Amino acid sequence: MNSMVRFLHHPTSQPCRAVHQFMLEVEIPFEEEVVDLINGENEQQSFKDAYNPTGQVPILRDGDFIVWESAAIASYLNEKYAVPSNWFGGNMQQRATIQQYLHWHSTYLRRGAGAFFYTHFAECIWGKRDYSKEIAKGKHTLDESMELLELWLTKSHYLCGDEISFPDLLGYHELVSHVAGAILVDADWQKYPKTKQWFDTLTTRSHSKTVSEVIMQVGAARLAGHIIPMNRKTSLAKGTEIKPGIPGMAQQQ
Amino acid sequence: MNSMVRFLHHPTSQPCRAVHQFMLEVEIPFEEEVVDLINGENEQQSFKDAYNPTGQVPILRDGDFIVWESAAIASYLNEKYAVPSNWFGGNMQQRATIQQYLHWHSTYLRRGAGAFFYTHFAECIWGKRDYSKEIAKGKHTLDESMELLELWLTKSHYLCGDEISFPDLLGYHELVSHVAGAILVDADWQKYPKTKQWFDTLTTRSHSKTVSEVIMQVGAARLAGHIIPMNRKTSLAKGTEIKPGIPGMAQQQ
Repeated sequence: MNSMVRFLHHPTSQPCRAVHQFMLEVEIPFEEEVVDLINGENEQQSFKDAYNPTGQVPILRDGDFIVWESAAIASYLNEKYAVPSNWFGGNMQQRATIQQYLHWHSTYLRRGAGAFFYTHFAECIWGKRDYSKEIAKGKHTLDESMELLELWLTKSHYLCGDEISFPDLLGYHELVSHVAGAILVDADWQKYPKTKQWFDTLTTRSHSKTVSEVIMQVGAARLAGHIIPMNRKTSLAKGTEIKPGIPGMAQQQ
Repeated sequence: MNSMVRFLHHPTSQPCRAVHQFMLEVEIPFEEEVVDLINGENEQQSFKDAYNPTGQVPILRDGDFIVWESAAIASYLNEKYAVPSNWFGGNMQQRATIQQYLHWHSTYLRRGAGAFFYTHFAECIWGKRDYSKEIAKGKHTLDESMELLELWLTKSHYLCGDEISFPDLLGYHELVSHVAGAILVDADWQKYPKTKQWFDTLTTRSHSKTVSEVIMQVGAARLAGHIIPMNRKTSLAKGTEIKPGIPGMAQQQ
């Protein structure tokens, strides 16, 4: 029996990249499986039954045990592998501050991903339409989130203190997608100098580039006008997505 | 110096009620302060500077240490007071499953609150308008979430196993608001019998009623057509709210 954990992910997913980099940073041995989100493998009922009823990645399999949600996976691995305490906090207050960030992240920065998704992926899925409202909403959420990142990074070198923690990877990979898709450009960075400095520091880490290669290529392809065929249903833009069958909202599929 | 923790909350907030009930259930001594959300006390810059830059409640103050986000607060208290292990998990897998729920909750069930908010509070804040799209979106998210609650409650008595845990309180208080505002009615419950049974079990707990009294009264007042004057900005309906200044979206204030 293989005792390595199995990591199911996709490199265009920000939370997947955060967990992926975390495992590389702390040297957790793992097998990986790229889930074909582009063709909707994760939307098959058999996939949902086996792994995650929401169809979302990342997912971790450890023997018979399955866990999903990026923060839950990283937290589980942190405990299982006795990872250095900076990643999830060395004392009660640090741990609470990290949990606070992780929950804030879900309802703020993560949702800013709508700006990337509707600028670049929506056309690939549903064709050319007017996505300006959804893009504006994503950008609004992204801006609101960047203001808080800047506030925190004015107080400490990293998001939850002077040492790197899992929240930094989670936050970083949201911004990597926005950079890949030119959602964040120089004019934005000028408003957030501390965040820019933090972003650059994280970019120099040895695993940042490896984990981000695919999304950088995908971003470049989209910026060059290439359409990437996909029928992906997404949780990326949860709350900003165009839902089928809701009165007054654009229909999809 | 008073060594009791101080709990800043509002009884119409679902996550506040969950933490409140948790503290009562596990007998944590605390001082409480009801934050005047109705008149926007939490939106004052001085409040945000002192406590939480998002202006959201609940907030916990423990001496000089401040933590917000309901799950982070409960997790901190769980650790500080050596609470019985059922609440946040007695082993690594239980803890991971609880974390998984807590993160799922933020992007699913919590967002279903838009159905309540736009049915009952939006008119109180912005006057009579057409909120049907936002209500439909909230209901869609609520339905999607109820399907997963039902799935999990078919497998075990509580959301994360056969013993009660903090996720149950968090989930329960979302549904309490929907019951108070008649968003969830008999026809809905018939689709989710296991969830109904779980809801009823939780309702019989001694602290459920105390913590829910105000929202039940508020719901009844709104159902009777009373307007409750409020200028509350909300995170309740994050992602479904009408944002000021976004092109194509209704303007507020």
